[in-house]
Amino acid sequence: MKVTLSALDTHESSFTPLVVIELAQDVKEETKEWLKNRIIGRKKDGVRRLLTSGIVIQVFPLHDNEALKKLEDTWYTRFTLKYQPIDSIRGYFGETIALYFGFLEYFTFALIPVAVLGLPYYLFVWENYDKYVVFASFNLIWSTVILEVWKRGCASMTYRWGTLVMKRQFEEPRPGYHGVLGINSVTGREEPLYPSYKRQLRIYLVSLPFVCLCLYSSLFVMMIYFDMEAWALDLHENSRSEWTSILLYVPSIIYAIVIEIMNRLYRYAAEFLTSWENHRLESAYQNHLILKVLVFNFLNCFASLFYIAFVLRDMKLLRQSLATLLITSQIFNQIVESLLPYWLQKKQHVKVKKKVQALKADIDATLYEQVVLEKEMGTYLGTFDDYLELFLQFGYVSLFSCVYPLAAAFAVLNNLTEVNSDALKMCRVFKRPFSEPSASIGVWQLAFETMSVISVVTNCALIGMSPQVNALFPESKADLILIVAAVEHALLALKFILAFAISDKPRHIQMKLARLEFESLEALKQQQMQRVAENLKEDWREGGKEAAP
Amino acid sequence: MKVTLSALDTHESSFTPLVVIELAQDVKEETKEWLKNRIIGRKKDGVRRLLTSGIVIQVFPLHDNEALKKLEDTWYTRFTLKYQPIDSIRGYFGETIALYFGFLEYFTFALIPVAVLGLPYYLFVWENYDKYVVFASFNLIWSTVILEVWKRGCASMTYRWGTLVMKRQFEEPRPGYHGVLGINSVTGREEPLYPSYKRQLRIYLVSLPFVCLCLYSSLFVMMIYFDMEAWALDLHENSRSEWTSILLYVPSIIYAIVIEIMNRLYRYAAEFLTSWENHRLESAYQNHLILKVLVFNFLNCFASLFYIAFVLRDMKLLRQSLATLLITSQIFNQIVESLLPYWLQKKQHVKVKKKVQALKADIDATLYEQVVLEKEMGTYLGTFDDYLELFLQFGYVSLFSCVYPLAAAFAVLNNLTEVNSDALKMCRVFKRPFSEPSASIGVWQLAFETMSVISVVTNCALIGMSPQVNALFPESKADLILIVAAVEHALLALKFILAFAISDKPRHIQMKLARLEFESLEALKQQQMQRVAENLKEDWREGGKEAAP
Repeated sequence: MKVTLSALDTHESSFTPLVVIELAQDVKEETKEWLKNRIIGRKKDGVRRLLTSGIVIQVFPLHDNEALKKLEDTWYTRFTLKYQPIDSIRGYFGETIALYFGFLEYFTFALIPVAVLGLPYYLFVWENYDKYVVFASFNLIWSTVILEVWKRGCASMTYRWGTLVMKRQFEEPRPGYHGVLGINSVTGREEPLYPSYKRQLRIYLVSLPFVCLCLYSSLFVMMIYFDMEAWALDLHENSRSEWTSILLYVPSIIYAIVIEIMNRLYRYAAEFLTSWENHRLESAYQNHLILKVLVFNFLNCFASLFYIAFVLRDMKLLRQSLATLLITSQIFNQIVESLLPYWLQKKQHVKVKKKVQALKADIDATLYEQVVLEKEMGTYLGTFDDYLELFLQFGYVSLFSCVYPLAAAFAVLNNLTEVNSDALKMCRVFKRPFSEPSASIGVWQLAFETMSVISVVTNCALIGMSPQVNALFPESKADLILIVAAVEHALLALKFILAFAISDKPRHIQMKLARLEFESLEALKQQQMQRVAENLKEDWREGGKEAAP
Repeated sequence: MKVTLSALDTHESSFTPLVVIELAQDVKEETKEWLKNRIIGRKKDGVRRLLTSGIVIQVFPLHDNEALKKLEDTWYTRFTLKYQPIDSIRGYFGETIALYFGFLEYFTFALIPVAVLGLPYYLFVWENYDKYVVFASFNLIWSTVILEVWKRGCASMTYRWGTLVMKRQFEEPRPGYHGVLGINSVTGREEPLYPSYKRQLRIYLVSLPFVCLCLYSSLFVMMIYFDMEAWALDLHENSRSEWTSILLYVPSIIYAIVIEIMNRLYRYAAEFLTSWENHRLESAYQNHLILKVLVFNFLNCFASLFYIAFVLRDMKLLRQSLATLLITSQIFNQIVESLLPYWLQKKQHVKVKKKVQALKADIDATLYEQVVLEKEMGTYLGTFDDYLELFLQFGYVSLFSCVYPLAAAFAVLNNLTEVNSDALKMCRVFKRPFSEPSASIGVWQLAFETMSVISVVTNCALIGMSPQVNALFPESKADLILIVAAVEHALLALKFILAFAISDKPRHIQMKLARLEFESLEALKQQQMQRVAENLKEDWREGGKEAAP
């Protein structure tokens, strides 16, 4: 058993927040001493190599119960509709997590108009497709505008936090980055160097084909599922019995299990490949990993809906699947993600408290207890899954918005509670994560924008396929398709013009960034002038010396 | 008559190249003195106000005959296929013009593969549209790649010249920019300030509607032209006589004249509106002006071709009009733009030489002669018309490439001579322009990229409309259109992915820019630290003083 707690040893360290290091039991006393010296006043990155070599089992900052209590009070414990205390969240958890909550809040507010507009469509079951065209067009322009406006809001926020101009490039390389030791030509520091063409080769010759193969096999599995479904339905209709009616559910169950297994395998493979690509920066690693996993998840989630919409062309089934997928995934997520772990943990909490009280009444019980408790808490693996959830939700809302206008309303309702359950998760379920600075939501912005482009195409196609619109062109289907294509192109063009016309950063931020750049270039100029002046002076002095004797 | 030459007065000025200022004759002697003092060692911008008030008639730098001779020798006088001496061009004419010639050369080379691939299509008159699909697809990917690669080449070039990191924002405002005097919040210098929201209002509430109205009226005129054409043809077929066969040409002539008048009026209006928008920077002014004129020219040039292609659906007529337009415009441009002015000027040159020799044998004749000659030369109005020519050429080559694959070959031939005639124009026809720094070809990059996106759409549509492809889907036209739309979307997606995957700047330039940024931020940090240290020192000293007595 490897359990040695050096929590109390590092108590006096200069770390804020308090960091706990769990050491393997067979570590020598001098190693411990050396470790303590290395860790105090240092970043966690230095310790990661010890983690992989098995000497250190885990490193995590302790929750600061007092600050946490304060944060919780303003954040989620009192259920009222108000803005989240983003700055306090940033203070406690760091920029990356604060940006996630900021985006979640912004996105929820942004969905409200769509939800409100979608309600009458659902309530009055308007089967007049003219109105759906209006709704879909509004939706598309709206999605473009909100994504652009978010960029501006995000820039304001991160400017205030001082991370907007953070130059990732100048940072230390990520742990695990390897290469021949050399001098970084930008910062002049010594660090491993790895040629970028090798990385490109790995990406394009190995990772890309692998991802394509996985996507293809995922589609292949989906096709088998639809075949099995048809076969089961066929069997059931030919010989109606209880056995065959149970058989009807078998394909779905098998498909769900296979998809889950594939998802997990793919995730491991993606992580392995991305770390093998040997990215220098943590952000580049994250972006490449996210892109890989995202594409696969997108296909798994939406391929069957696309198949129903555009191959089977069954709008009722589409609406039904959409509703089922959206609502079940939302409920499932909220329970599995935060409520269940919270409940489990609370039970354990009571156990540990009893044990600690019984055994160790003499030492600093509260801190020891806290360490034992938090050691067993789950580790927060980053914002990926949270963003993914939002991304898929955005897909459900926008891709087929003209078929199921109620989706936005469900999304809003979900997100209002999601804020609270996610907050609960961060504060009470997981170990406190190390705070990570970030300047924006990174590759997710691109992902959301791509989704909104795809949704223009799908919505136009859906409207074109509706029987009401088809009835307007009884003679020529070709004319209808041409008109739909023309409208789609016009909408896409409008979208790009809008994205181009709305600048990414508010004007006052642009001005301040320009000022920073101006000042730093001026400072460089002065520094160089000074150096030249000093050199001249020295030359002159030396000249004087030479002349003197 | 207002001819006073102060060329000889400014001879001794610190300007390189020599600048000639033509003054109004009624200017007092002291004004002249004051002017000389102001101009010597100053930029031309300071003089512009005097130009508008009519005291100074024109200001231009003189050609440096020796350097010009050298440049010409390596540039165009010997007709051999070789790279242009871009760095020498930049040394003589400045970055903006060097970039134009660089782009012209690059674009010509980039067109060669398309031209070579297009030749067999023309020679063997392959009416097999499969092959055209291959050609068009190649063309589209090619156009994306060359535009992305140009960005990289351009960045390398301007980095070498030191203009890539040129911060236009920190520059002095353009002449004509007006506003309330205040402090520029970026540079801290005193200059006129004009709120950006007012500019936005002017752009969106006045300029944009005006441009839309002009575009609409241009389309309207085109429709009238087609009506007149049809009416003339009708008349001719009903009563065949010599009169009616002449009448056949009348609509085209009227249309050409009306278009020319509209073009000129629109250009004036665009210039007026853009200067009324009150842009702070010359580059912003140029970009807005170019965008306005570009859209109008695009419509005038291509609207009739679009009409023929997609409304009349007459591929033979399209090919014919395309060939006529491309070839006549190329020949016409080369003659009117450079050869004709060169010839006219040469004639005048002889006249002036005779006069000067007869009258002024006593003073420094060569310089006086040069001034008199160059005073009468045309003024080069910027690279706009040259780029516009290339842009329209790119349109002819790419928009309908699958109908007329020979266009690229004609374009290559034209550009090979265009380099020489443009060089002749710059060196011998126009006054030497003031050298302007620039970091890239600016809004033209955007224009070319937009054109290549539009060409994806038109080519797919053309291929879909061809009878050979239609014959493949004898039963359902709708299926055909759907397949064409799917291919088009796939191509567009590929295009955007390509544009995203190819980074805009070569890696070594990225590294160098990052290094500059890093160093300047470090310098700023040091400067601020120094300031803090000095403040501390002072505080300490003052503290000491207070304590002492």
